[in-house]
Amino acid sequence: MGRWEPNASGRLREAALDLYVERGYEQTTVAEIAQRAGLTARTFFRYFADKREVLFAGSAALQERMVGALEGAPAAASPMAAVAVALDAAAGELGGRREHSRRRQSVIAANAELRERELIKLASLSAALADGLRRRGVPDPDATLAAEAGIAVFRVGFERWVDDPADRDLSQVMRESLDQLRGLTAG
Amino acid sequence: MGRWEPNASGRLREAALDLYVERGYEQTTVAEIAQRAGLTARTFFRYFADKREVLFAGSAALQERMVGALEGAPAAASPMAAVAVALDAAAGELGGRREHSRRRQSVIAANAELRERELIKLASLSAALADGLRRRGVPDPDATLAAEAGIAVFRVGFERWVDDPADRDLSQVMRESLDQLRGLTAG
Repeated sequence: MGRWEPNASGRLREAALDLYVERGYEQTTVAEIAQRAGLTARTFFRYFADKREVLFAGSAALQERMVGALEGAPAAASPMAAVAVALDAAAGELGGRREHSRRRQSVIAANAELRERELIKLASLSAALADGLRRRGVPDPDATLAAEAGIAVFRVGFERWVDDPADRDLSQVMRESLDQLRGLTAG
Repeated sequence: MGRWEPNASGRLREAALDLYVERGYEQTTVAEIAQRAGLTARTFFRYFADKREVLFAGSAALQERMVGALEGAPAAASPMAAVAVALDAAAGELGGRREHSRRRQSVIAANAELRERELIKLASLSAALADGLRRRGVPDPDATLAAEAGIAVFRVGFERWVDDPADRDLSQVMRESLDQLRGLTAG
């Protein structure tokens, strides 16, 4: 990447989100995103496969960070305690950008193709967490169940946080959701 | 439907699954499915939108039965107890056809498009259970969390049952998976 395109990826992501919110995802073209960012379509395609992937460009980093945290959890931690460490890491990755997240979720919620893409990313995240738990010596079905429960908590906690008028800390909302799941299953 | 096509839908579903297992999903055409069933492609399209939907034709009935069971659970039942009643109903719907389920899962596992379709159906099922819980007076996020936890148990229990050499009862495997989730979150 030449020095005449500082932070091209970040500029393209912001421009895309702005246009998706303003005009709708379907009505926006790659050429318009590039123009808004002051870049070319050619540059866009150096970073993203298509206009859908701009919205999901952060998921690989999120998954890597969550799996890394899971693997770094104390060896004595229970499967759900290790998952809780991964959820804390997710909060660290996402927690500082609530307004960005809120706008992104509104774009995804309005489009069936994007909602499907999100489901696939979450399923991939669940599978990666289950793999990480197996590497920690957790057998199946516990590994799969704990990972799926963690993703349920992640989804619910994230949605609550995004819509929360009180602007609370994401990691706190995640922990509360985990406690709520605990209360529900114990009942 | 004319009387010269008895059980056309069931015949088409069986023919499709046979061909998907024998030749692969992608290599099979609607014309071949219809021919195998002794019917016409025109008849196929009276029942199914495309060759993918043949595999998911049972999901509406499954969802209806699970939501009905949830709604019929005792008023005093906790959210997870009501979800457990829905899981029992799912076992009643699916439990008698393990070999069919095993073959269907092998076809779905081999194809990314079908795996995505399955994720969407499960998300729809989760949303329907959460709606049912809200109608029972369960507030959010409890309704969403309990529904998501139920779907996690459903997925894990169903997969274990399909692969179980001991050929156990699906409702028993589901209950065990729910107990395992309880143990995991309590830990």
